[in-house]
Amino acid sequence: MNAPTGTAPLRLGMVGGGRGAFIGAVHRMAARLDGHYHLVAGALASDPARAVASALELGIAGDRAYPDYATMATRERARPDGIDAVAIVTPNDSHYPIARAFLEAGIHVICDKPMTTTLADAQALAEQVQCSGLVFVLTHNYSGYPLVREARERVRRGDIGTVRVAQVEYPQDWLTRRVEDSGQKQAAWRVDPARAGRGGAIGDLGTHAHQLLRFVTGLEVDEVSANLAAVVPGRTLDDDAQVLMRLSNRARAMLWVSQVCPGNQNGLRIRVYGDRGGLEWAQEEPNSLRVSRLDAPSTTLSRAGPELSTAAAAATRIPPGHPEGYLEAFAQIYSDAAALIRVADARMAASAHTRLVPGVQDGVAGARFVEACVASSAAGGRWVSAQP
Amino acid sequence: MNAPTGTAPLRLGMVGGGRGAFIGAVHRMAARLDGHYHLVAGALASDPARAVASALELGIAGDRAYPDYATMATRERARPDGIDAVAIVTPNDSHYPIARAFLEAGIHVICDKPMTTTLADAQALAEQVQCSGLVFVLTHNYSGYPLVREARERVRRGDIGTVRVAQVEYPQDWLTRRVEDSGQKQAAWRVDPARAGRGGAIGDLGTHAHQLLRFVTGLEVDEVSANLAAVVPGRTLDDDAQVLMRLSNRARAMLWVSQVCPGNQNGLRIRVYGDRGGLEWAQEEPNSLRVSRLDAPSTTLSRAGPELSTAAAAATRIPPGHPEGYLEAFAQIYSDAAALIRVADARMAASAHTRLVPGVQDGVAGARFVEACVASSAAGGRWVSAQP
Amino acid sequence: MNAPTGTAPLRLGMVGGGRGAFIGAVHRMAARLDGHYHLVAGALASDPARAVASALELGIAGDRAYPDYATMATRERARPDGIDAVAIVTPNDSHYPIARAFLEAGIHVICDKPMTTTLADAQALAEQVQCSGLVFVLTHNYSGYPLVREARERVRRGDIGTVRVAQVEYPQDWLTRRVEDSGQKQAAWRVDPARAGRGGAIGDLGTHAHQLLRFVTGLEVDEVSANLAAVVPGRTLDDDAQVLMRLSNRARAMLWVSQVCPGNQNGLRIRVYGDRGGLEWAQEEPNSLRVSRLDAPSTTLSRAGPELSTAAAAATRIPPGHPEGYLEAFAQIYSDAAALIRVADARMAASAHTRLVPGVQDGVAGARFVEACVASSAAGGRWVSAQP
Amino acid sequence: MNAPTGTAPLRLGMVGGGRGAFIGAVHRMAARLDGHYHLVAGALASDPARAVASALELGIAGDRAYPDYATMATRERARPDGIDAVAIVTPNDSHYPIARAFLEAGIHVICDKPMTTTLADAQALAEQVQCSGLVFVLTHNYSGYPLVREARERVRRGDIGTVRVAQVEYPQDWLTRRVEDSGQKQAAWRVDPARAGRGGAIGDLGTHAHQLLRFVTGLEVDEVSANLAAVVPGRTLDDDAQVLMRLSNRARAMLWVSQVCPGNQNGLRIRVYGDRGGLEWAQEEPNSLRVSRLDAPSTTLSRAGPELSTAAAAATRIPPGHPEGYLEAFAQIYSDAAALIRVADARMAASAHTRLVPGVQDGVAGARFVEACVASSAAGGRWVSAQP
Repeated sequence: MNAPTGTAPLRLGMVGGGRGAFIGAVHRMAARLDGHYHLVAGALASDPARAVASALELGIAGDRAYPDYATMATRERARPDGIDAVAIVTPNDSHYPIARAFLEAGIHVICDKPMTTTLADAQALAEQVQCSGLVFVLTHNYSGYPLVREARERVRRGDIGTVRVAQVEYPQDWLTRRVEDSGQKQAAWRVDPARAGRGGAIGDLGTHAHQLLRFVTGLEVDEVSANLAAVVPGRTLDDDAQVLMRLSNRARAMLWVSQVCPGNQNGLRIRVYGDRGGLEWAQEEPNSLRVSRLDAPSTTLSRAGPELSTAAAAATRIPPGHPEGYLEAFAQIYSDAAALIRVADARMAASAHTRLVPGVQDGVAGARFVEACVASSAAGGRWVSAQP
Repeated sequence: MNAPTGTAPLRLGMVGGGRGAFIGAVHRMAARLDGHYHLVAGALASDPARAVASALELGIAGDRAYPDYATMATRERARPDGIDAVAIVTPNDSHYPIARAFLEAGIHVICDKPMTTTLADAQALAEQVQCSGLVFVLTHNYSGYPLVREARERVRRGDIGTVRVAQVEYPQDWLTRRVEDSGQKQAAWRVDPARAGRGGAIGDLGTHAHQLLRFVTGLEVDEVSANLAAVVPGRTLDDDAQVLMRLSNRARAMLWVSQVCPGNQNGLRIRVYGDRGGLEWAQEEPNSLRVSRLDAPSTTLSRAGPELSTAAAAATRIPPGHPEGYLEAFAQIYSDAAALIRVADARMAASAHTRLVPGVQDGVAGARFVEACVASSAAGGRWVSAQP
Repeated sequence: MNAPTGTAPLRLGMVGGGRGAFIGAVHRMAARLDGHYHLVAGALASDPARAVASALELGIAGDRAYPDYATMATRERARPDGIDAVAIVTPNDSHYPIARAFLEAGIHVICDKPMTTTLADAQALAEQVQCSGLVFVLTHNYSGYPLVREARERVRRGDIGTVRVAQVEYPQDWLTRRVEDSGQKQAAWRVDPARAGRGGAIGDLGTHAHQLLRFVTGLEVDEVSANLAAVVPGRTLDDDAQVLMRLSNRARAMLWVSQVCPGNQNGLRIRVYGDRGGLEWAQEEPNSLRVSRLDAPSTTLSRAGPELSTAAAAATRIPPGHPEGYLEAFAQIYSDAAALIRVADARMAASAHTRLVPGVQDGVAGARFVEACVASSAAGGRWVSAQP
Repeated sequence: MNAPTGTAPLRLGMVGGGRGAFIGAVHRMAARLDGHYHLVAGALASDPARAVASALELGIAGDRAYPDYATMATRERARPDGIDAVAIVTPNDSHYPIARAFLEAGIHVICDKPMTTTLADAQALAEQVQCSGLVFVLTHNYSGYPLVREARERVRRGDIGTVRVAQVEYPQDWLTRRVEDSGQKQAAWRVDPARAGRGGAIGDLGTHAHQLLRFVTGLEVDEVSANLAAVVPGRTLDDDAQVLMRLSNRARAMLWVSQVCPGNQNGLRIRVYGDRGGLEWAQEEPNSLRVSRLDAPSTTLSRAGPELSTAAAAATRIPPGHPEGYLEAFAQIYSDAAALIRVADARMAASAHTRLVPGVQDGVAGARFVEACVASSAAGGRWVSAQP
């Protein structure tokens, strides 16, 4: 997964991710790790002065340190050495207009999740992507973990039989107190419906869990019965969400996400059970995958260890026993995006694994899921379709 | 928790638990471990000849190896050295008539769970117990684990603040295939509504999970929204149950039990989160309890280790690092029952911990919970009260 | 492993284990659990008055509550209903004379470890046992764990190939401070050479680790290079012991035991590696055994789970997922002893598994090991033979 | 730990690490992750043609794709935009001449471990480094893990009291079979004394374990008693090494490293015990650190979680719960090296944490340790000084 031989790195721009931002730095490390990108342009903050200063601090040349994304899209389009792709790492509500602008400028897009704050926007964006022929990658980074890809492959080839039951959860604790009151920037926009959208935890964490479930099982969520709540007094958006689901093969699933459970940091975990076996994986210990078969002892697969599929082996960098983590999985999405972009730009042949990369349709599915959960919860848990 | 000094063991009878039974042997080991009981009488099978033979095999004297429970209740009542208590370890549907018979004979009852197959029976039994003044202990054995008692104590004294969110689950895998077709006796009656009652997994496992949740949180389950299903084709009773719950302080909880998840043996696990901290415990690793406080690293309490409450310390036998398990926790319930019986019989003073012993009211609550879940599920997940 | 059908429990006496003793209560629970014994006689303390009072407190009849072991041996021998076996649970230095007295009285012996404080005593005892035809069981209780027996069986049948490397360790922390100064009785005699013998940690813990290594690998320890030290100022006996070992097939092994490592309770752990695979087991999580094969993912065996040998399956009571622990493993040694005694007394047929029970020759090997370690350490770590 | 604002990346060259090499790619990812370096020159293989081709494949410009390291040192020295630093990632035996050449050229050196194959070379190199005023960093990458730095800091500030006992181990399994016979390049040179030096496992893994022990405890190894062996028939160098150690404060330690233990991938683990507490860390689960205090429950520190020292907090990139791994720790060494280089080149102020970076004196200590172990083992385990 190192930069392919003989190819120059892609030119990358970034919108958002200036001083004090968390996810912007993650995207930059992810872009750097495998050597496929060179960050050359940015509009890194909503405030023009801060945007320019942040870009200069990161070593971006002065003429590509932009005050705003619109200027950046226009000027980069005009340059002969304009950016190949833009990474959008702003709060949720601005993903849509920013993505539109760069797609219109003919620039590939790598966008943080959730993709949009409404289903309508998501659908409009999907249409635009399709017409443009450009690459659109949504950074559902957990699907970049090698053993998540192994789990998907094992379900796909029938190792556990027909999927019957699945459990997915993602508890956190960082919003147990009203940290949004103390000026914590990450918290402030996430609890604000104007910027986060109609989903709180269900949008921020639920879309990850939902995508992971779909990715691993290969199934869609047909219907949901949801119970969302703002547990912490004074909040508008949910900070704890319980969802029952019917999957497209009639399997049963439960999803739980929370931001108010002390002792949980990023407890994303998935368990999938079929009529012949089961699979269990947890994000905080991502280098092992528990595999069960009926009437046999459980085995523990190691990242990069024996018996892995090529899908998993292709997504890892170092031997087993030397842990890879979150940044490597995130980098995998970036490296997969680079492969897609190079294919799209006719620079090289496609990899078999690029179909694993989350894209605009995953963003649509996520938006639909959040809207269905919000509707179901408002209706006292009534079963609501999460399909078109 | 060894037999109190200077007291003779209690005389114990048993109904059910003959050849080939699983739980009967567990009850006998639990009764023996701490030395509080001597098994002297039994009606160990529904078939009279097998009942007698089973008793003789266990070393019960010939005149107390009874062909049926009714005879046993009558004759033991008449003996000057009649049994102090009876352990009822038959399939669910017979708990009620057997318990009635022994209570009528003035004999204390230790009964396997779930207590009855209907709420009406449970209520009738509760009334009879109250009138009788006799001890009735329901073997919700997981509440005998020392660190479960520690968890309860820590919630009670406010260590985690106000409980807001709880998760309880109990997945198993032994019914993933239709083992009931192959003559597996344990499976056969559990999937048969005539013997198990209206709940399958929700009755067998759900009542344990429900009691554990109530025990640890000190809260009642007010309302449920349930989704029960027979995942394995051909079954009548649920083998996978999803339940959302509102607790008596308006906290939110999820309960999941399943018998069809390969790789899960007895995965009972509880997690409770308050506004100041959290607690996590899993039955398969019962000798540690994870305790979290906001803004501090997690700690791991060891059974019998430092900083335990007296409630936990009183329920353990050996130093930390030497694991205790299921039989010890089960024995604790028996030893607690012995303490209650001795108090009731005015033989000795009460222990402060006897209030921890699950009794007939827990059986009523469990029956009500199962009925509420069945009703909610039949109504498409409608919220249903689980309170009188 | 419940009491065999139709047989009366064996009559058991106990020496040591009165008020305040730890291991006596463990032996009594172990003897009770499977129903093979009935405690009917005791000389439970070195002080005659306390000995009698302790026995009465345990419900032993007045005429069998003895002031000292010599009286007990004499009188029990004379009774028609005299004890079948005696459990010796005193400090190390008295095991030898007490065992001699009961063997002379024709009574089977179950003795706590280490067997004696000198090799000479151990050899004399072994000779006496052999001449007597009586059963002598040494409670190396860790070999009673089902998955330890599984590990042994897998080595024996060649699953891991030729053993090349082994690691065994047993760290504790309870003597990190000079608790012996504060009247802690357990500590006081263990740090006193007059009562514990020449080995401190190496005698108390090292003999367990040594026996476990021999039990699992089926190999003997040929030579040792040891480095013993009293880490805590003021101690005479070692409280931390490092030992390198050459095994009888030239495999290499390391043994480490310590009483001064904070955070370790009973960290007994063994790892054995052959040219085809490896095995790892830890006493604090005894219900799983990690099994590795070259070029394959590791598997985790569950106690009572799939693919266990009959040796392991015969040593467990309840299904997988319901943990068994220390007392169950200890009880297994008692139940095995009962089987041996019944065979010796011609009451019933032998079990195939009785060869797994640690006996007097294990006590000799342990004494020889301690002496070799002490000699090697005194000689600056010179390699010393641990064989006759 | 991202590239400091407003500074251009350092120009990096690399020797070794061409096609098929493992550690070269690791160094490149480590150099890229935090953005402090730009790889601009290389002599990537011992074969000149392959060296040039490998460099071109990595996107290095043709005029800086060198056939050999000597040419590279000479030419880079002469360029106005010559490299700031060189990374040496060749087999052990060439580290010394290559390092000499670049130091002579006035170029900072980042060198893979073990530093040299003899103590004499190590000492000569140390002298040269000192005279040169250049930065020399030895990539003992495990000291880059944040929680390893936390452990060091906690020992240093006295949290566990006086260190008394330490255990360090590093088992692997990849040389269980004679993979060197099958053309496995990594294996071939590691088992060849001409290229690896006099230590096999003790050189490859033992130097890591030795450095980790010194780093965490702040103590030196005074004396060793070692037992090295080539367990796999036909090998010259040790593949399993047992070492007893006396530390500079008279604490006792054991070190075990092995390449022949099936089921172990990179099992580096350290445990340190003082008179007030203990610390335990394992490389395969690097995001948690177990901390014990006497008479209190154990706590588990999370990377980036509460109560970390600034030394640890400064070495991490992302919030707790999102695992970092081996590449991040390796990148930390590179980022620390960049800080040292910038200070040396007077480009910016020093960070307080640069004293944590392993350097040439660690290389000398490692070489001395290996020689002492080899000498002790040859003398039957005699205690040998590991100090000058």
